[in-house]
Amino acid sequence: MTGLVHPELISPALAHPETVLGALDFAGVAVFAATGALAAAREKHDLVTFAFFAAITGVGGGTLRDLLIGAPVFWVQDWRYIAVCLGGALAVWLVGAGEWRFRALLWLDAIGLGAYGVLGAAKAEAFGAPPLICIVMGALTACFGGIVRDILAGQPSILLRREITVSAALLAATLYVVARELGVDHWPAALIAAPIGFALRAGALAWGWSLPAFPGGFIRKTPS
Amino acid sequence: MTGLVHPELISPALAHPETVLGALDFAGVAVFAATGALAAAREKHDLVTFAFFAAITGVGGGTLRDLLIGAPVFWVQDWRYIAVCLGGALAVWLVGAGEWRFRALLWLDAIGLGAYGVLGAAKAEAFGAPPLICIVMGALTACFGGIVRDILAGQPSILLRREITVSAALLAATLYVVARELGVDHWPAALIAAPIGFALRAGALAWGWSLPAFPGGFIRKTPS
Amino acid sequence: MTGLVHPELISPALAHPETVLGALDFAGVAVFAATGALAAAREKHDLVTFAFFAAITGVGGGTLRDLLIGAPVFWVQDWRYIAVCLGGALAVWLVGAGEWRFRALLWLDAIGLGAYGVLGAAKAEAFGAPPLICIVMGALTACFGGIVRDILAGQPSILLRREITVSAALLAATLYVVARELGVDHWPAALIAAPIGFALRAGALAWGWSLPAFPGGFIRKTPS
Repeated sequence: MTGLVHPELISPALAHPETVLGALDFAGVAVFAATGALAAAREKHDLVTFAFFAAITGVGGGTLRDLLIGAPVFWVQDWRYIAVCLGGALAVWLVGAGEWRFRALLWLDAIGLGAYGVLGAAKAEAFGAPPLICIVMGALTACFGGIVRDILAGQPSILLRREITVSAALLAATLYVVARELGVDHWPAALIAAPIGFALRAGALAWGWSLPAFPGGFIRKTPS
Repeated sequence: MTGLVHPELISPALAHPETVLGALDFAGVAVFAATGALAAAREKHDLVTFAFFAAITGVGGGTLRDLLIGAPVFWVQDWRYIAVCLGGALAVWLVGAGEWRFRALLWLDAIGLGAYGVLGAAKAEAFGAPPLICIVMGALTACFGGIVRDILAGQPSILLRREITVSAALLAATLYVVARELGVDHWPAALIAAPIGFALRAGALAWGWSLPAFPGGFIRKTPS
Repeated sequence: MTGLVHPELISPALAHPETVLGALDFAGVAVFAATGALAAAREKHDLVTFAFFAAITGVGGGTLRDLLIGAPVFWVQDWRYIAVCLGGALAVWLVGAGEWRFRALLWLDAIGLGAYGVLGAAKAEAFGAPPLICIVMGALTACFGGIVRDILAGQPSILLRREITVSAALLAATLYVVARELGVDHWPAALIAAPIGFALRAGALAWGWSLPAFPGGFIRKTPS
């Protein structure tokens, strides 16, 4: 995260917050696209399906965010996001989907959860959404692409696993929004919030942390 | 339904139809959010997943409606809708998901189907959609949140069950739109249409009503 | 495809490109709606579910395209699209879902893939999307309705089958966009691209063509 932003580059970047958001977006899109391609690799799909899974996972969360806050959808304006997704798909196709790549991606994905949780909240803030909604947008941006990937792949989505993933994005987004409400500037807020969100996901990966499950009795049918 | 609108309050409300729509929205959102939380309870999920299921089910239908008719998404403008969803999730977590709560919610959900069928049609009408589209929006608003809930939970959606649910919302929306086309005012139209939609769903709950199934032969594969 | 556009009719049509797009849309919507109704027929659903599957499959792809490019959603503006879907649902209900209707629809669907691949790209072009994005929109328009149909029906989506379907739409959209970039006019570009996209799908239907699958090793879990 921090390595992406060299101190000398911050001032002009802050003068053009859109540019900074865009730069962060590319990194997150590439990571999420690679996880989408890995899902396609697992099922031994063809290259077109690789590309679709990569694109849907890479840009899905940000797409929903932009539709909801009324922003022009980011990748429709700038074709390089889709190009990054196609690059991610091709990379997984060429490099393969062996065990160490999976482990590496799990950790890159953890970085993405923290970064995207902040990024989604920041973009919603820029479009005037109230604080609670900014937090929701952060979590959606970080998690929705993966949820759609899992639904399309016929897998149980991350919402259904007891792992801490959505929570990490929520934590990052919440910290960012709270810091902003307390008057902290964009970048300090982001540089506090994203690493802590990442740390929560990292702890869950390393030590199997999870939230307590619903303790109550259960019912047999859902109302409709 | 009718209890929500005290006669003395109607006149100022009619002067601000947005306000009235919003007030009805809160009640519907709370009910649908609770059904989402119950779906999460059944699978013994954690509180974050409770909140997500509640929010998606509570605001999903209205979100799709607003995106389709080009309205600003209602809950992005007003954070209280998400707060209501979180409250619904917490309530189910605390109260538990035993049998009588399930029965109570099934009936609350039936009220929601009638009310949301009308509400979705009325908002689409306010945005200038043609009558047939208003009916579709009514049904979508009432049913889409539950469909997404079921897909995310890995359950067969209400579309796939032979029960009368979508039909009740369609009936409420159709009656409202027909009444409006015949020159009936907003509130009388709503107060006719929503209870009849509810009655259809209630009859289906009480006596197991269903529509006739497709009588024809079947095929083995779907075209793609 | 070509039969839809009599030479004498092209000039006034070109003067109103919206009209031409709309006319093509109706044919595609009807075909896709019928495939949706067939999916409902297979599961012996009732008429309301027939109508929903028909509508979602018929207008789903174009709806996503319009939301993404920021266009008013086409069927919300013009109720005749939904009427066409309802007609398609009713037709399948009445005519039944026997083997020859399935074969006929598979080929009509192949025409739809080519036509919609071009149509989606053309509409995105008209809204100023960059060429790569126009190609993506062509594929989405042609395929997304069927993907949602399969998810709602609980079937593995076309993305997960090794058949050439998305690829045919991608080919049609790509040829159209490349021809346009080379300065070819709308209609010649469409009349080259759509039949070639159809031919690819037709070859896949007739001779079981498919793209090579991912040759690499596999992994056991997807990152989230």
